[in-house]
Amino acid sequence: MKQAIGVIDSGVGGLTVARELMRQLPKETFIYLGDTKRCPYGPRSEEEVRAFTWQMVNYLLGKNIKMLVVACNTATAYTLAELQEELDIPVIGVIDPGARAAIKVSQNKRIGVIGTEGTIESKAYPQALASIDQDIRVNDLACPPFVPMVEEGILSGPKAEGIVSRTLQPLKDMNHIDTLILGCTHYPLIKDLVQNEMGDHIQVISSGEETAREASLILAYHKALETDDHTPRHEFYTTGDMEKFRLVANSWFEEPIQILKSVELEHVSSSA
Amino acid sequence: MKQAIGVIDSGVGGLTVARELMRQLPKETFIYLGDTKRCPYGPRSEEEVRAFTWQMVNYLLGKNIKMLVVACNTATAYTLAELQEELDIPVIGVIDPGARAAIKVSQNKRIGVIGTEGTIESKAYPQALASIDQDIRVNDLACPPFVPMVEEGILSGPKAEGIVSRTLQPLKDMNHIDTLILGCTHYPLIKDLVQNEMGDHIQVISSGEETAREASLILAYHKALETDDHTPRHEFYTTGDMEKFRLVANSWFEEPIQILKSVELEHVSSSA
Repeated sequence: MKQAIGVIDSGVGGLTVARELMRQLPKETFIYLGDTKRCPYGPRSEEEVRAFTWQMVNYLLGKNIKMLVVACNTATAYTLAELQEELDIPVIGVIDPGARAAIKVSQNKRIGVIGTEGTIESKAYPQALASIDQDIRVNDLACPPFVPMVEEGILSGPKAEGIVSRTLQPLKDMNHIDTLILGCTHYPLIKDLVQNEMGDHIQVISSGEETAREASLILAYHKALETDDHTPRHEFYTTGDMEKFRLVANSWFEEPIQILKSVELEHVSSSA
Repeated sequence: MKQAIGVIDSGVGGLTVARELMRQLPKETFIYLGDTKRCPYGPRSEEEVRAFTWQMVNYLLGKNIKMLVVACNTATAYTLAELQEELDIPVIGVIDPGARAAIKVSQNKRIGVIGTEGTIESKAYPQALASIDQDIRVNDLACPPFVPMVEEGILSGPKAEGIVSRTLQPLKDMNHIDTLILGCTHYPLIKDLVQNEMGDHIQVISSGEETAREASLILAYHKALETDDHTPRHEFYTTGDMEKFRLVANSWFEEPIQILKSVELEHVSSSA
């Protein structure tokens, strides 16, 4: 039986990662689970994020997935290590792929990171970068206005440009970095705005693209790549309002999503 | 005891991969072995390339390496699968990383590949690309003048520009690709010339950079990354003329190489 790749997120942001996974791995089947009912995870306690994440993981394990992608920066920061430890399948998060890609492209070892307040406060990116190269200097900046702006569908035009410009100003003032990591899965939707604001000399790294690339390598490494050249049917699950999820997903994907189901995670046991 | 990462190549070309490995993994120690006496491998039979490669591998296994990087396209094409099968340590080649990076950046799924005649004839890149995405169209081109040009140190100026321009003309005439893989470890040294000739709309992928990025992931995945922030002392071995090797290596690296030794591989048993 074909096995799917599971993708979990606190809500809809991880859809940018799912979109890249489907583009870079067109033979693979994906099952996406977004905990839209309880998002955002950013302001929640570590204990809550861990419990919610394990509920999602256990639900997808019941669907016989062959790999798990944690497409949420907060969930990655709090749970990746223990998921990798305890699951028998490969587990990939969104933080390390962005860090490795930034190390590859940066020439001056000065790397910027933008994300939610939770991700920036967790220092997960500076730690990931320093674990590989102690000489890297990180300028990080929380950008609280970006997620609500993206979720409201404000992705271009003067209002979006103004918000992006004002928010990124502290990073521009420092003017040292040559590479900028988009450390939030919502941000790829405003990548062009960020690039325009920061200038062409800054290489902007999208964690979704990089996570998909690394998922491809890890699948190949485990000889678990799908070889059959079929058209996969992906499944999407949401804990929240289905029509709201469908609207966002369809505006982010090129083709409308086919299979969308509702799931109540509170009724899923959190024990493995 | 600290374990090093082994890097093997038919000669000096793999030094571009080693340079990227050292840049992206500055805490790691590398042992490079270049079979300069018997290079190039391109025109040799598969049997010979496999025997020579196993001699290099066995030599480095005697040095207790924790990972092997096959920094030679020909050796990768002929031996990667069996090395991955038979060795207990992770083994990485240079073909798949370039293919995955190209899939990540290409938007129109038309990818160019340039390499030696052997690499292009092997169809290793088209096969690696198609194994992931059947819809990718590949335009490949053998560029025989590039390796001798690079080895003679002709890396810029009108003569180099002329050779690059004439050689790449068939690829430019087709004018469809949006991504070009440098499928030879010598080519990163003329990356700027190739970029200028192809135009800014073409994304040029260097297999050395991408191989280093994937080595970083596989080490992290095996929890085998060096954590100690020391200054590693890399070792270089050549089967050929030491002074010629030193000249090339020092012209390609920013700092002169410290430890260079000679090795006679013919006396090494080819049994594992």
